[in-house]
Amino acid sequence: MATTERAGELLYEGKAKQLFATEDPALLRMRYKDDATAFDGKKHAVIAGKGQLNNAISAIFFARLEEAGVPTHFVRRLSDLECLVRRVRLFPLEVIVRNIVAGSMARRYGLEEGMVLAHPTVEFDLKNDALGDPLVTEEQIAVLGWATQEEVAEIRRLALRVNEILSADLRGRGVVLVDFKLEFGRDPEGRIVVADEISPDTCRFWDAETREKLDKDRFRRDLGGLEEAYAEMLRRLGGTPR
Amino acid sequence: MATTERAGELLYEGKAKQLFATEDPALLRMRYKDDATAFDGKKHAVIAGKGQLNNAISAIFFARLEEAGVPTHFVRRLSDLECLVRRVRLFPLEVIVRNIVAGSMARRYGLEEGMVLAHPTVEFDLKNDALGDPLVTEEQIAVLGWATQEEVAEIRRLALRVNEILSADLRGRGVVLVDFKLEFGRDPEGRIVVADEISPDTCRFWDAETREKLDKDRFRRDLGGLEEAYAEMLRRLGGTPR
Repeated sequence: MATTERAGELLYEGKAKQLFATEDPALLRMRYKDDATAFDGKKHAVIAGKGQLNNAISAIFFARLEEAGVPTHFVRRLSDLECLVRRVRLFPLEVIVRNIVAGSMARRYGLEEGMVLAHPTVEFDLKNDALGDPLVTEEQIAVLGWATQEEVAEIRRLALRVNEILSADLRGRGVVLVDFKLEFGRDPEGRIVVADEISPDTCRFWDAETREKLDKDRFRRDLGGLEEAYAEMLRRLGGTPR
Repeated sequence: MATTERAGELLYEGKAKQLFATEDPALLRMRYKDDATAFDGKKHAVIAGKGQLNNAISAIFFARLEEAGVPTHFVRRLSDLECLVRRVRLFPLEVIVRNIVAGSMARRYGLEEGMVLAHPTVEFDLKNDALGDPLVTEEQIAVLGWATQEEVAEIRRLALRVNEILSADLRGRGVVLVDFKLEFGRDPEGRIVVADEISPDTCRFWDAETREKLDKDRFRRDLGGLEEAYAEMLRRLGGTPR
């Protein structure tokens, strides 16, 4: 496949990002879009500045994870909207770590948003918009062949480690990490690594004092001020849009 | 609570069964109804003879489980429509064991019905019609307090044991046990026991030769011949309606 790719060729376009080939078949260029979508794409808008903010925020998170010894696909930021990542084979799973009940978990079980869980939980959804990203048990993942039992165990371990690292870091910045979604892939060396993005599009961040939402729930729930909230997150993380 | 109950008092009425108090506070009378419902009660019909057939079939299955050492709430059949059961505190969970992909699993993951799983799986749904009995992970059951981690492990072990016993028995009768739903409760002695019913309303049975459905899918899918299919199941199990 790599031999027939031209550098600069668009390999994949999702709701929030594009992936392009580079001269090096092991590396891809990831470009963040300003599109905001929710509810499996049923709600859509274009929010100027969002792509740049997510690129900057995600770069900071990935760098912190690498520093803490968690392998990721991230190499470096290239420009306002672009970063360089290593090519990985993604598992068809959304891996959701929850510290506090919110969003789909609250709706699914009729629970009040804001309930603090006694310990973090890891949940796997099958990545399939047409099916609404359904919840899947670890046993079903293995028996249906989406990942082996060993891969699921390693993904779970890494996801909880990411939660420890990011929760502690954010706590010091006055932000509660409510929940977040990760994607994982296997790199050419066979390592399982964190892939995709880590941004206010894929995490729930609440201000520790005011409980103000600093994430995509501002868009999902028509609260307004999305770009300002993302910019505030970037500021708290000590970054600047470039 | 038991002190204010009168013998014969209706304690609970569900979609397919009623529970009445008896003279003995430790025992309840369970009465099967002819009502057939599907899709969380959205589809409904009354099918003469169904209650009697389910009472007879369930009595046979419970007796076989008890013989094989699996504790259940079942005491004995009382009449055409009624049986005597021990009072248990039910877990708010539907426990689904699957050998072959069908029903909600096929729909949820876009899989073809009939795919044989490499090994049986156990899945837990929160028993809540208003929420559509949502799938819940074992970790979430424990953290949300619907059962402890130890209870979940014991329920899983018992559910797989029930599957072994019933699958082997049915195989000898030309029937494939595709999947089934169990409910579990804790009895006054603290034992976790199989409760509710085990019938063509709660299991998928396929004729081993023709793959003909001998269960409630005949109602869900408007295939007709539901009473005949249930009667055929009772005949194969060596029972007679009384």
